Amino acid sequence: MTDLKNDTFLRALLREPVDYTPVWMMRQAGRYLPEYRETRAKAGSFMDLCRNPELACEVTIQPLERFPLDAAILFSDILTIPDAMGLGLYFTEGEGPRFERPVRSAADVERIGVPDPQNELRYVMDAVALIRKELGGRVPLIGFSGSPWTLATYMIEGGSTKNFANSKAMMFDRPDLMHDLLGKVADSVITYLNAQIESGAQAAMVFDTWGGVLTPGDYREFSLRYMERIVDGLKREADGRRVPVILFSKGAGQWLDRMAETGCDALGVDWTTDLSDARRLVQDKVALQGNLDPCTLYASPDRIRREVGRVLASYGSGSGHVFNLGHGIHPDVNPEHAAAMVEAVHELSKPYHAGH
Amino acid sequence: MTDLKNDTFLRALLREPVDYTPVWMMRQAGRYLPEYRETRAKAGSFMDLCRNPELACEVTIQPLERFPLDAAILFSDILTIPDAMGLGLYFTEGEGPRFERPVRSAADVERIGVPDPQNELRYVMDAVALIRKELGGRVPLIGFSGSPWTLATYMIEGGSTKNFANSKAMMFDRPDLMHDLLGKVADSVITYLNAQIESGAQAAMVFDTWGGVLTPGDYREFSLRYMERIVDGLKREADGRRVPVILFSKGAGQWLDRMAETGCDALGVDWTTDLSDARRLVQDKVALQGNLDPCTLYASPDRIRREVGRVLASYGSGSGHVFNLGHGIHPDVNPEHAAAMVEAVHELSKPYHAGH
Repeated sequence: MTDLKNDTFLRALLREPVDYTPVWMMRQAGRYLPEYRETRAKAGSFMDLCRNPELACEVTIQPLERFPLDAAILFSDILTIPDAMGLGLYFTEGEGPRFERPVRSAADVERIGVPDPQNELRYVMDAVALIRKELGGRVPLIGFSGSPWTLATYMIEGGSTKNFANSKAMMFDRPDLMHDLLGKVADSVITYLNAQIESGAQAAMVFDTWGGVLTPGDYREFSLRYMERIVDGLKREADGRRVPVILFSKGAGQWLDRMAETGCDALGVDWTTDLSDARRLVQDKVALQGNLDPCTLYASPDRIRREVGRVLASYGSGSGHVFNLGHGIHPDVNPEHAAAMVEAVHELSKPYHAGH
Repeated sequence: MTDLKNDTFLRALLREPVDYTPVWMMRQAGRYLPEYRETRAKAGSFMDLCRNPELACEVTIQPLERFPLDAAILFSDILTIPDAMGLGLYFTEGEGPRFERPVRSAADVERIGVPDPQNELRYVMDAVALIRKELGGRVPLIGFSGSPWTLATYMIEGGSTKNFANSKAMMFDRPDLMHDLLGKVADSVITYLNAQIESGAQAAMVFDTWGGVLTPGDYREFSLRYMERIVDGLKREADGRRVPVILFSKGAGQWLDRMAETGCDALGVDWTTDLSDARRLVQDKVALQGNLDPCTLYASPDRIRREVGRVLASYGSGSGHVFNLGHGIHPDVNPEHAAAMVEAVHELSKPYHAGH
C-alpha cells in the first residue's frame, strides 16, 4: 500500500469523492521561481540539470515548499527520448532545442531504435526514484512524456518550428514513413513511462503540445491513434493503486470526445474551452484537468481569485476536476500570484464537494 | 452597376448559385513569389512597399497573372491603423513589427484618436482606387483590416508577442481601459474600411489573428463584441451591389455559431475544424471561407489535389463556400504547388454546383 498523506489529486483523477479540488501547475518547477534559477545556474546547462538526479529532485520539490500543491511533477524535458535515440540534442540561446541529426529519410527512420530506459534514460529513472523518496508521501508524483506526434515534429524539424514544413511534408507525402516513425516513438514512450511508473511515478501524463496544428482527420490518424496505443500499453497499477493517465493536446477543444474514448483517466484542457462544455462533451467519462488562462497570473491577486472562481464554477459540482493552468506557467510571473491562485482553489472549491 | 467579369467570389459569399467554388489565398501577394521579392527589393522596406500605391498595386495583381484566382486582396498591413494613430511603426529584422510608443496607461489611451483615412491613410485609399482601376473588372477586390482585439495586442505589447503579458494584464486588471481602447480602434476600423469601400473595395475582411488566445467569455467580451460593432457600422452596398463582410478569428472553431450571429456574410475557418462541422454549427446562416491546411502546399501536387478534394467534400453541395487556405500561404512554398491547388479547386468543385 502507498504511504500517501495527500491523495486528493489521484482520487480526483479517478472521479472519486474529494474534500476540495486539487491543484498543481504545468511547469511549476521553473524559471518563475528564483530558487529554480539558482539551482539552474549551479547545474550549468538545462540538460545538465535534467541529467542530474539530485538537482532535478531539488527543483521538483521547490514549488511544494512554497505552495500547498497537491501533486509534484518530475522535472525533465520531453526531448529526453529523441536524445536517447542518438539524435544529439543541444540547446542554443534564443532558438531553443536543436538536434544535430534530424530524421528526414527512410534510412533515418530505419536507424532509430527504442531506447532502454534503464540504460540511456537511467538518469530519469534515478530522478524519479529519488524524488519519490524525498517526497515521503506528501503528494503523488507525476511522470510524463511528450506524445509521439509532438516528439516526431522536433525529430523531423531538428528543433522547434513555426510552420512544421518537414513534418507535414512527410505526413502528406510519406504517410507510411511517418507511421513507422510514430510507431517507434510510441513504443519508446510506453517503455519510458512504464519504467517511470516502476521507479515510483504515481500518475502519467502525455503532453501533445502540437496535436492542435493538425486537421481533425490528421489529428486522429497521426496523433490520437498513437496516444491510444500508449494508454493501452501502460501499467495502470503500482503499490496496489491505480496509476491514472492524463492526455493533453493543446488546442484540442473540438476533439475532447474522441480523446475520452482512448481509455485514459483524464484530459488536460486548455483555456480556450469552457470546462462546462468540455464536461458535456466527454459525458463525465474522464476527469478534466485545467484550465485557467496562464496569463491570468499577470493580473492582480484579487482578479486571480475571481477567475479561479469562474473556472471552478464552469466545472461545477462533484469530483473529477483537477485545477491547473491551461498551459505552462509563464517565466515572468510573480510567484506571489501563483500562491494566490493555489489558495483560491483550495478555499473556493470546498462548496463544490460538500456532502459527498 | 459593376463592370465585373467574374463575380463568382461575391456570389458565393452571399450564398447565391455559382458554377464552381471560387478560390483565393490569404497572403497570395507575398514572399513565396519571386516577382514579389523583386518588387519588394525595389521598394526598400516593407512599409515603403505598403505606402507606395503603384508598387502595392503591382504586387496585388502579381498572383492574378500566375493563377486564375477569383479575388484580389489589397496589399497592405494590419498595422497601418496604429501607425496612423502615431505609435511609430517600424520593422526589425527577425523581430517583426515594433512600435516606438506602445499603449500602456490611461494617458496613452486618452491620447489616441481616430485617424482620418483620407489624410493619414490616404496612401491605402490611393492603392485601393488604383488596384480597382488596374483590375478592370477581372475579379473583385477585397479590402481588409485587423480586428480591434488583434490591433490592440500589438499596440499594447509594442509589437509581436508570444505571451500577451501586457494586453492580458490590462484586460484583467483594467477592463475599463481596455474597452476604451477597443472602442477607439473599432471606430477607426469602421472609418478605415468604409473609406476602402468608397475607394473601390468590393468586399471587406476583418482579420482577428489573436482572438483564439482568449477564453470563450473573454473572446465574446473583448474581441467578438467589437467585430460586431464593425459589421454594424460598415457600408454594405457599393455600385448597386452588396459588399460582403468576412470575419476571421484564427482558432475559433468552437465559436463559429456566435460569430455567425454578428450579421456578417461569411466566416473564415482555419484548418483545425472540419467544414462539415462548421457548416452545421452556423446552420447555413453565413458562407464559409477556407480551409486547407497551409502546410498541404509543402506536399506533392498529387497529394495537394487529393486534399483539395477532401476540403470540397467536407463542405458538400451548394453555394456558400469560398476556397482558401486556413491561414496565410507560407513564404517557402513552391508557387507551382499553389497553381496545383487553384486548378484542383476549379476542376473538382463543379459537381458540387451542378444543376443549381
